Parts: sequence; C-alpha cells; structure tokens
Amino acid sequence: MKVGNSYYRSIWGKESDPSKICIIEQRRLPYEFIIEELGTVEDFVLAIRDMHLRGAPLIGVAAAYAMYIAAFTAPADNFDKFVQKAAEMLKSTRPTAVNLFWAVDNQLDVMRKIEGRNSKIEATFMHARHIAEEDVQNCKKIGEFGVELIRKISEIKNGEPVNILTHCNAGWLATVDWGTATSPIYHAFEEGIKIHIWVDETRPLNQGSKLTAWEFSQQGVPHSVIVDNAGGHLMQHGLVDLVLVGSDRTTIDGYVANKIGTYLKALAAKDCGVPFYAALPTSSIDWEGRFDPNNIPIEERSGDEVRFVTGFFQNQIVKVLSMNESSPARNFAFDVTPPHLVTGLITERGIIEANRESILKLLQKHV
Amino acid sequence: MKVGNSYYRSIWGKESDPSKICIIEQRRLPYEFIIEELGTVEDFVLAIRDMHLRGAPLIGVAAAYAMYIAAFTAPADNFDKFVQKAAEMLKSTRPTAVNLFWAVDNQLDVMRKIEGRNSKIEATFMHARHIAEEDVQNCKKIGEFGVELIRKISEIKNGEPVNILTHCNAGWLATVDWGTATSPIYHAFEEGIKIHIWVDETRPLNQGSKLTAWEFSQQGVPHSVIVDNAGGHLMQHGLVDLVLVGSDRTTIDGYVANKIGTYLKALAAKDCGVPFYAALPTSSIDWEGRFDPNNIPIEERSGDEVRFVTGFFQNQIVKVLSMNESSPARNFAFDVTPPHLVTGLITERGIIEANRESILKLLQKHV
Repeated sequence: MKVGNSYYRSIWGKESDPSKICIIEQRRLPYEFIIEELGTVEDFVLAIRDMHLRGAPLIGVAAAYAMYIAAFTAPADNFDKFVQKAAEMLKSTRPTAVNLFWAVDNQLDVMRKIEGRNSKIEATFMHARHIAEEDVQNCKKIGEFGVELIRKISEIKNGEPVNILTHCNAGWLATVDWGTATSPIYHAFEEGIKIHIWVDETRPLNQGSKLTAWEFSQQGVPHSVIVDNAGGHLMQHGLVDLVLVGSDRTTIDGYVANKIGTYLKALAAKDCGVPFYAALPTSSIDWEGRFDPNNIPIEERSGDEVRFVTGFFQNQIVKVLSMNESSPARNFAFDVTPPHLVTGLITERGIIEANRESILKLLQKHV
Repeated sequence: MKVGNSYYRSIWGKESDPSKICIIEQRRLPYEFIIEELGTVEDFVLAIRDMHLRGAPLIGVAAAYAMYIAAFTAPADNFDKFVQKAAEMLKSTRPTAVNLFWAVDNQLDVMRKIEGRNSKIEATFMHARHIAEEDVQNCKKIGEFGVELIRKISEIKNGEPVNILTHCNAGWLATVDWGTATSPIYHAFEEGIKIHIWVDETRPLNQGSKLTAWEFSQQGVPHSVIVDNAGGHLMQHGLVDLVLVGSDRTTIDGYVANKIGTYLKALAAKDCGVPFYAALPTSSIDWEGRFDPNNIPIEERSGDEVRFVTGFFQNQIVKVLSMNESSPARNFAFDVTPPHLVTGLITERGIIEANRESILKLLQKHV
C-alpha cells in the first residue's frame, strides 16, 4: 500500500543486495517511517521478539525470510547445524505464534529436499517469496469478497458515505499487503465508494490510533479516531453502518478470538442492528477443533502496557506514566466473541456464516 | 475520605481564615496532591472553568461557596451590583452544569431575603455549608443502601472477594465526600467485607485510572486498573460480580446518561448475567420529563483530549501525542444506557427499578 507517494509492502528482499531483507520498523510508527535492513538471523530474532514487526501473517513471512538469511549466511562447512540452530532461535522469539513455527519448519523441509548449498539458498528465498505472495493474494481476495458488503450498503444509502467501525490493526502492516479487515475498505476506496472509517484507538497499545490511522492517512481514506468507549454510542445513533474486525483465531464453531474489546463492539452491533463481520484467512481457522471456546487460555501481558503510554513529546518518542502510580494494572490481550454476535466471516474463499456447518462446508470444498 | 493518614473533603472553608475556601487541585492528581486556596470570585471562575475541580455535585457546592466569597469581598457601596456580576461570571464557566446555576440562584435568593451586609455574608456561608452537608448525607445514604447489595453477594460467595467493576470517577472527588458509585464500596470496605474493584481507565481523560484509582489507593481498597476494552472479557469469565457506575442525569423512564462507554459495560453485564446498578442522588433525575431519551444532545468535546495523553515524565506533568498526528479525532463525552440494561438505581432514598413507575413512586413519597 501507499506510504507517501510510493508503494510498499511490509517486508521485501532488497533488490540490489541479496544479503538483506527490508522491513518497516513498526515501533517507530506513526511518528517516524524507518526501513530496517535485516542481514543476520540475530537481526530477525530481535525484530520478531521486540516487535519491530507484528501481526500473525507477517511474523510467519518474516520467519520464512529469516530462514533464507540463515541459509545465506551459513558457513559451508557447518551448514546444517547453523540452519538448525537458527530455526531454534527463531522459534523461541514468540512462543505462541503458530505461523512462525509453521514457516520455519516448512523452510527446513525445503532444504532437506534439495542438495547443494546454493540450491538450498535459492529454494528458501523462492519459498519465502511464495508464502509472502500467497498472503497478499489471500488478503486481496478477502477485499474482493468484502467490498461487496460495502457496495450494497452504499447503494442503500444512495451514495452517502458508508461508516465503518474497525478495532485494532488488522491492516496491511499486520500482513504483507492489503490487510484483512482493511482490505475490503481499501478495495471500496479504490472503487470510488464513499466511505468513512471510525478507528478505535485500541488501548492499551493504541494499534488503532497509531497504525490503522497511519495507514488510512497514507492512502487518503477518510477516517476519525475515537476512544474505545465511543463505538456503542455511535451505533445507537445510526452513525455506524458496518463493523469490520480481524481475527487472531476462529473456532470451527465460529467463535472469534481477537484483540481485547472486540466483544463489546459486537454486543453493541447486535443491540443496534449493525452488521458485524470478521475478516480472516482460512488458515487461521482452528478447523480440527483443538480450541475449546469456553476455555480459551487468557493471555495476560505486563500491566506496564496499561500504566505507561508511548507518545511523542519534544521531538522524541517517550513513555509517560498515565495513571495513579501506586495502583496495580491488569492487561488481558484478547477476548472471544461468540458466534451469535457475528453476522459473518469474510475469507479468501468467500463470505460465510459463523457456524460449524458453514465453516466445514467451505473448508471441505477446498481440501 | 482519607488522603495519606488525614481525612479530607473535596472542598472546605479554611478554619483560621474566613476569606479562603480550600479545594483539592484535581488536575494535578494523581501525580501531586495540592490544596488550592480560593479567595476571589475570579479564583473560583478559573477553578471551575479550567476544571481544578469537577463533578456535578462538587461544582454546585463550589458555586455556592463562590457566592459567599462574592459577598465577603463585595465593596459596601456596590454590594448588589458586585454579587450580581459575580453570579453572571460564575454561570458562564460551565454552561451545561445545572447544579451550578441552581446553587448561584439559590444564593442570590438567600441574599435578597436578608438585610445587612454582614448578615448576607453569614447567611451565604451557612447556606453553602448546608448544600455541602446535604451532598455528604445523600452520598452516605447511597452507600448505606448500596452496601446491602455487596453484602448479599459476599454471603453467596462465602466471603470470597466481591469483584466490582466501575467506570470513570463517581467518587468522593466528584462530590464533597463518599462519592456516589464509590460510596457502597467504601461502606463495604469499612464493614470489612472482602472486595476487589476493577477500575476502568476511562479514556480519553482517564478519570478512572487517575482519580478513582488514586482514591482507592488512599483508602487502601484493593483494586486493579484495566483498559476500557477489558470489562466484557472479565464478565464472560465470571470475574465481575457487580457493575456500579454513577449517572450524570437519569430520565423519568430510567435511561441513564453517564460517561462514554457506560453503555458497552451495561450490554456486557446483561449478556453475562452480571447485575448493573447506577448510583445517583434523586436531584439528578429529570423527573419533569424534559429529557427525551431518544434525542439527547450529544456533547462533543475537543478531539485533542483523544490525541494527547497527560502523563508523568521526568518528574513533570506533560502532554504527549499518542496517535497518528495527521488523523482527526472525535470526542463524544457521554452515552445513554437504556433501562432494560439497568438492574436498578441506588439513590439516597432507597434502591429502585429503572422505570417510570418506580421512579415516580419514590419521588412522590418524598415530595
């Protein structure tokens, strides 16, 4: 997508230098746009662990490129041990990131099947690029299916702007390009459909007001940032036509695990008759049913993410204490929205209802 | 209530000096505890307009004391004009604060009915103190009625801590003492009932994490600050036994206008079977029905309150930009929770259902 007047992806191989992979240093956004070049496995470990990049799809792609860099930098006399150690280091960065494990193991498989150092290097690069490209295509298709919903609302409103509310960053910065929840929005915008997006701030890390708002600013998509408290009020007053969110994981029964606060927006949407859709690649559906919706482990992160706000002050990025110092804070990372609040799931294979029958039908059609 | 080891109210006449009224400078909380002495009408205008103090009940009491100071400082040869001008200045500070208008007009009435400068001064002081005392008594009674709900839950839980979620600051800092939503909590705590409070941060101004959390810290009430997004998730997992909020205004039909985001918590409470109560003095009920719940004017404040976070950094209070700079922000100040989501209203006259019949019955009993 666009940054200024240029087109970027969130990760790419440096054209003039095969020893470098480029990423956008997301911790500096929206205050500074910095491209970081990663040339060693250690660079990738740091970038993934310390969240220079984030978002499950992007982490997977980055891990695949990291394994290419591992092969590229491995000494000829110690190749296998070096890439094996790289794989272990990468897997330890974000222990819950399924895409990361999958991408690393895939690259090990690729290397096992091919002889010769140079062939292995080339094959891992091609495979990383393939995974990236597949992610782009999936997100693009999510947009093509999802834009239909926006087009229909626009027609009903006789071309008046369609107001869409989104939560967190399910944008192109979390994927390679297009994003998931943002993809229908970008497609609608490119088609010339009049839209306006309500961007939930998304406390505690403000991925909405920092990343999603930055994305929309760069593309020129009309939007307004609101606090997470405001969405219900807007829906009560007819100021939201559609809620579009991402999903970290979706159960076979249609339970949508996503950033904390999604459930509250889904409740308000139901109460106010506003359609509520989650956009996701089918790879994030737990279609083997390993995931008990009533007993999902609650990821709890450091309370300091609640206590301190990262902001811009006197030309530098600073962390300020934004609450009573002596009070403890608790920080739950996501919640689960039950299927009766979900109007539908927008996937790269089409839009379906959030229930076991629809999900199985969709998956079986393509297995 | 307690600050450190001393007991304070949020406003009081300085004992050694009748020319000064003391308040707590709330803009500096929770970072600094500063007592401000107000000695002129201009001091009060500044304090009310620039929110050194806030909360409808406290603003009313402050306005009453301001009129006493007006009388105290009025020149003998221009008394009437001086107090009349003071009244106008005060009324222009917060044009939507009903309690302020009411308190100022009340004091003008008091002065009209009494002859002699000294008598007028004394009468306005007595009346201001009376309004303050009435507020304290109302809040105390809200606590006495409300604690019964907490006691019952504690019994059902066999003395396990009762988890209460609250939003914004309906605490003693918004009144003269005790608070509204916090009064049942303080009464339960003093009774020795085991409790734990989930304190909603309450973006954009963080009155929860700044003021309510500070209050609880000073009293020693166990609590945890959470982001506004988290409450629904906690209720889904049985981690909230009771939701207790304040109310800026309640309609005769039981619609509760309160800080933005209250409606979302009420929806989650309903969905999860958690009782949801609003605590309020009956003076804030619009019992003449002037207030159309479906057409309440939406107070919109400056987007800068969303864009900038006030925090503590390198030993000073600073304002930092916490989002994408080029994005606009919208800032809606309150929302309205419909009566079917409200389990009951806790008033100084008892606990009632949120409907016209119950409210009228309660009011008629006391008119």
